[in-house]
Amino acid sequence: MIISGKNSVYEALVAGKTINKVAIFDVKGKEKIVELCKKNKVRIDFVSKEYLDKLSTHHQGVVAVVTDYKYSSVDEILSSKSDEGHFIVVLDGVQDPHNLGSIIRVCDCAGVDGLIIEDRRSASVNETVFKTSCGAVNHVKIARVKNINDVIRDFKKKNIWVYSAEAGGESVYKTNLTGDLCIVMGSEGFGVGELTKKLSDRLISLPMFGKVNSLNVSTATSAIIYEALRQRRGK
Amino acid sequence: MIISGKNSVYEALVAGKTINKVAIFDVKGKEKIVELCKKNKVRIDFVSKEYLDKLSTHHQGVVAVVTDYKYSSVDEILSSKSDEGHFIVVLDGVQDPHNLGSIIRVCDCAGVDGLIIEDRRSASVNETVFKTSCGAVNHVKIARVKNINDVIRDFKKKNIWVYSAEAGGESVYKTNLTGDLCIVMGSEGFGVGELTKKLSDRLISLPMFGKVNSLNVSTATSAIIYEALRQRRGK
Repeated sequence: MIISGKNSVYEALVAGKTINKVAIFDVKGKEKIVELCKKNKVRIDFVSKEYLDKLSTHHQGVVAVVTDYKYSSVDEILSSKSDEGHFIVVLDGVQDPHNLGSIIRVCDCAGVDGLIIEDRRSASVNETVFKTSCGAVNHVKIARVKNINDVIRDFKKKNIWVYSAEAGGESVYKTNLTGDLCIVMGSEGFGVGELTKKLSDRLISLPMFGKVNSLNVSTATSAIIYEALRQRRGK
Repeated sequence: MIISGKNSVYEALVAGKTINKVAIFDVKGKEKIVELCKKNKVRIDFVSKEYLDKLSTHHQGVVAVVTDYKYSSVDEILSSKSDEGHFIVVLDGVQDPHNLGSIIRVCDCAGVDGLIIEDRRSASVNETVFKTSCGAVNHVKIARVKNINDVIRDFKKKNIWVYSAEAGGESVYKTNLTGDLCIVMGSEGFGVGELTKKLSDRLISLPMFGKVNSLNVSTATSAIIYEALRQRRGK
């Protein structure tokens, strides 16, 4: 996989990702990257702009060639439980890599234990996700599973509350979002799937006071996750 | 301006926008659009796919040709004050039309009085914004001004509290966001400008518990606006 752009390459280095090499055209403004490469013993190639243009359309003068993204397991996410209990986000079929990248940033900022995506119907961690996440992808545990419903069934056995976001659900401001919690967000076009909704302990939603009353999945995730955070850390 | 795609054309018709004509290739799934065109006496042209391809890359078989987006004035936004007081969002230089579109959706859902953008350094309402906003652009008052700082000075004279989002500011969860309120969100790369920050009554922020600790401007706006909404409507 290619990671393009100053911030993304820098974040990959800081996170200690396995980087095969870094290719730089223009060193200016990338002194920290060069320094980190030297410190981490990562090979640096000084290349032409044309070389980078072939690898990426938005390289800002630097790319890193890395081994493919290494997903976490659900068990690793479960073992990251903090004092406030499990705090896990499941995406049911989010397909736009920009949305996935933005949601990963929300998960990083809010300190969630991890993010679970389905391998068949979801965007996976590719270069666009890496770039859109501003490198947060290096710090958030992401598990890719065959079937989110199996995971949800298991969570329920473990007494983790599973709440799916759905228009018309109970207001998040009236819902207790503390304790062991898993929040399921649906896909851009179809929301959370029927079976997943049935398996959920509750359907939750953001109050809506507009005319169109439709949020992008990343902005909806942000408002819901931050409300959970307010309740959890406010104690 | 061209509006492309089923949802966007439908929303433009529902909002009663001045539409010069609607061009349709494939009527299937667009029965409501045809019905609304007839009801609103909007001309329909039945055209070839090639014709639409020339107008837009994502037309889904239908486009509307509309007169350019009509911005609101700041006075119109001020006159939309609700019982909870003024609730206004100012964007200081947000440049990505996808972010602008997502933020307009947040403003619609949260029922803000209006959104103010600067004409020089910001994305303006173009086709991408229209599309990304899912038509919410038709329902949110948007004013485009020469200088947001002049507007902010005027707001302060009117006793509207002006809070700018800035890393390290006071937590939104500890800030009173009720009453006459204007929230300023900064640009993707640079945040809120220095002068604007100085003019603000307070700097506010979302608590951060991650490693990268950087949110996309649309997800940050969503979490902040929804916290304001919780405080304002919760009473």
